[in-house]
Amino acid sequence: MYETLAPSFFFTEIGARTEAFRTAHPGQRLLLLGIGDVTRPLAPAVIQAMHRAVDEQSRAETFHGYLLEGGTPFFREAVASYYARRNIKLRPDEIFVSSGAADDLGSIGNLFTSENRVLVIEPAYPAYVDTNQMVGRPIFSLPGTQENGFLPLPESDSDADIVYLCSPNNPTGAAYTKPQLKRWVDWANERQAVIIFDAAYEAYIQDEGIPHSIYEIEGANNCAIEISSLSKTAGFTGTRTGYTVVPADLIREGVSLRDMWERDRTTRTNGVSYILQCGAAAALSPEGILQNQENIRIYKENGRILSKTLKECGLWFTGGRNAPYLWLRCPEGMDGWMLFDLLLSRAGIVGTPGEGFGKCGAGYFRLSCFGSREDTEEAAEKLLELFRKRI
Amino acid sequence: MYETLAPSFFFTEIGARTEAFRTAHPGQRLLLLGIGDVTRPLAPAVIQAMHRAVDEQSRAETFHGYLLEGGTPFFREAVASYYARRNIKLRPDEIFVSSGAADDLGSIGNLFTSENRVLVIEPAYPAYVDTNQMVGRPIFSLPGTQENGFLPLPESDSDADIVYLCSPNNPTGAAYTKPQLKRWVDWANERQAVIIFDAAYEAYIQDEGIPHSIYEIEGANNCAIEISSLSKTAGFTGTRTGYTVVPADLIREGVSLRDMWERDRTTRTNGVSYILQCGAAAALSPEGILQNQENIRIYKENGRILSKTLKECGLWFTGGRNAPYLWLRCPEGMDGWMLFDLLLSRAGIVGTPGEGFGKCGAGYFRLSCFGSREDTEEAAEKLLELFRKRI
Repeated sequence: MYETLAPSFFFTEIGARTEAFRTAHPGQRLLLLGIGDVTRPLAPAVIQAMHRAVDEQSRAETFHGYLLEGGTPFFREAVASYYARRNIKLRPDEIFVSSGAADDLGSIGNLFTSENRVLVIEPAYPAYVDTNQMVGRPIFSLPGTQENGFLPLPESDSDADIVYLCSPNNPTGAAYTKPQLKRWVDWANERQAVIIFDAAYEAYIQDEGIPHSIYEIEGANNCAIEISSLSKTAGFTGTRTGYTVVPADLIREGVSLRDMWERDRTTRTNGVSYILQCGAAAALSPEGILQNQENIRIYKENGRILSKTLKECGLWFTGGRNAPYLWLRCPEGMDGWMLFDLLLSRAGIVGTPGEGFGKCGAGYFRLSCFGSREDTEEAAEKLLELFRKRI
Repeated sequence: MYETLAPSFFFTEIGARTEAFRTAHPGQRLLLLGIGDVTRPLAPAVIQAMHRAVDEQSRAETFHGYLLEGGTPFFREAVASYYARRNIKLRPDEIFVSSGAADDLGSIGNLFTSENRVLVIEPAYPAYVDTNQMVGRPIFSLPGTQENGFLPLPESDSDADIVYLCSPNNPTGAAYTKPQLKRWVDWANERQAVIIFDAAYEAYIQDEGIPHSIYEIEGANNCAIEISSLSKTAGFTGTRTGYTVVPADLIREGVSLRDMWERDRTTRTNGVSYILQCGAAAALSPEGILQNQENIRIYKENGRILSKTLKECGLWFTGGRNAPYLWLRCPEGMDGWMLFDLLLSRAGIVGTPGEGFGKCGAGYFRLSCFGSREDTEEAAEKLLELFRKRI
């Protein structure tokens, strides 16, 4: 199955090109607005909780061995409380701890057969496609375009057993409204499809009326699995921990997907580190949320700076408002890899070519808001220099 | 696929029965010699390394975001040095960090198709069977018996694409010698099969001539993947981290399994927490090894106490010497679940019925050496009382 894949995962390829440039130009400082990696340190509440957990592991009386694979009660309660802020009621056993969204986006496929048909809304995070290709599932795509604002809705002939929705979206930064998501939920319930909802960027939403969770939509508990992560919410990209919600009401062909997922997790994992679950629960506590909002505010200010710059350059873009990404149309008919090479060689800016996110991403380019303020401001200046000159 | 499995994972079932007993007898102290969970705290070197790593995550200048999915260079070097102590040379990129052996024992199946035939040596850790059943692979078993010392060798008609070997063995505690393992390596190379070698208990070996790694055997780098864990080596059952070795020389049908595994990991995971990799590398450092040997010595003393007791009871058993498990024949024609209920109700001892490890485990019983000294001594006394009376 693997032979049908590009030889390396897309982000690995970008890393390799960047490293090659770095080796060839050892003196030059790079402005990293490519991979969506955070740069702000962990919140004090998280640090404190993890130090305490490490100390507990140092004494026999407080030592923790094997944990419940689905998650410790305190972690599941922390996630349930996080959802309760938006009036979403989840039972603790509907919540499963994970090593991060990337891990569960791959493993969730264990619930399905290789015959199940997959619908991917493109441009898309490459793992949605690659993980399904690896097991040989038939994959169809629905294109996002400038015309539909990169927020396509189900069409009369759209059919599938599984659909991936990511809102706010990676890479485009576009976000579905409630009525739009309701269209997808109704579509899934009509044909007994399952929505895999990637909520990794929900903490960046600022506009009213944009749902933070698919469970804000009526009927979603009958058709949707939500996969989320603390990577972007709390800076856990290198610390790792996330959660996946599989509602008890999600039944397919008489089988409870929640029960199947519990069986899968108890068989194929031994759960997630006690230390990380302590840190993650602290990130979702009222104190942790407040501290993380400060980091998110800083990243969102980067988004404002880059948005202003792209407007001044006269470039079309979406995102940057409810999401930590901007998605711009490459100028002068360039494709994404051409713009990648141009920005890297002329300005030391590392961005992400739209081509990596599927066919309809060709000719677009993603900039991330996760760089440092200094890098972002310097990148903004260089973008202005480069494109004011050229257009 | 899931319908063919028992409704819950075996160890989950034991946990449930134990909890039911606890609820019915709230006053009674339980002696936990069942699930192979450690009770000694983490070594000081590990604690120190993890505190330092948490501190690094608290400052922007030392903060770590996304890491190489296969493992940080320092972790891979630490594992390579650990193997180098036994003159096994591994390239860092043949070593992959994991969230623990349980996780990779499930995921390693991603390298194979659902048509590949699996040979499991029984009695066996249930996940070897369950994870393959979940994807519908044909499974054959080779029985361990008192006659072959629970160390079966390939028979003239044994055939398969994948074979699971666990030595020192869970649940039996029996361990293959070098010439015995050589038989398996030759068998695998002759038919281009792949050995999945579970080395989780290697740190408990005390006898010369028992290999700690499959790579001590000539030819193993052409046919074997080794999956290991710090759970038993360094008390990481609740802290989680392990490693998997896929040698560059392991090629099947022209495809490098190492390259495939790297592609799998980079697509389906975002690696393992920086904090955990720091702790794990410290556990494998000379200082960490020395500190962990002290914990292992304590568990092995438990093994000596239980061995002495079983001899005094006149019960047949293996293990307890190169492994943290003892595998005994149930007295008086009892089956394992009968002995489980008897020990729980009459002595408060929680052990593990052999039935959970496959058909040929019926009528046997596993005791773990990971209990506290106090629990182990009390269990030994109660076993003596119970069986001196009965036999």
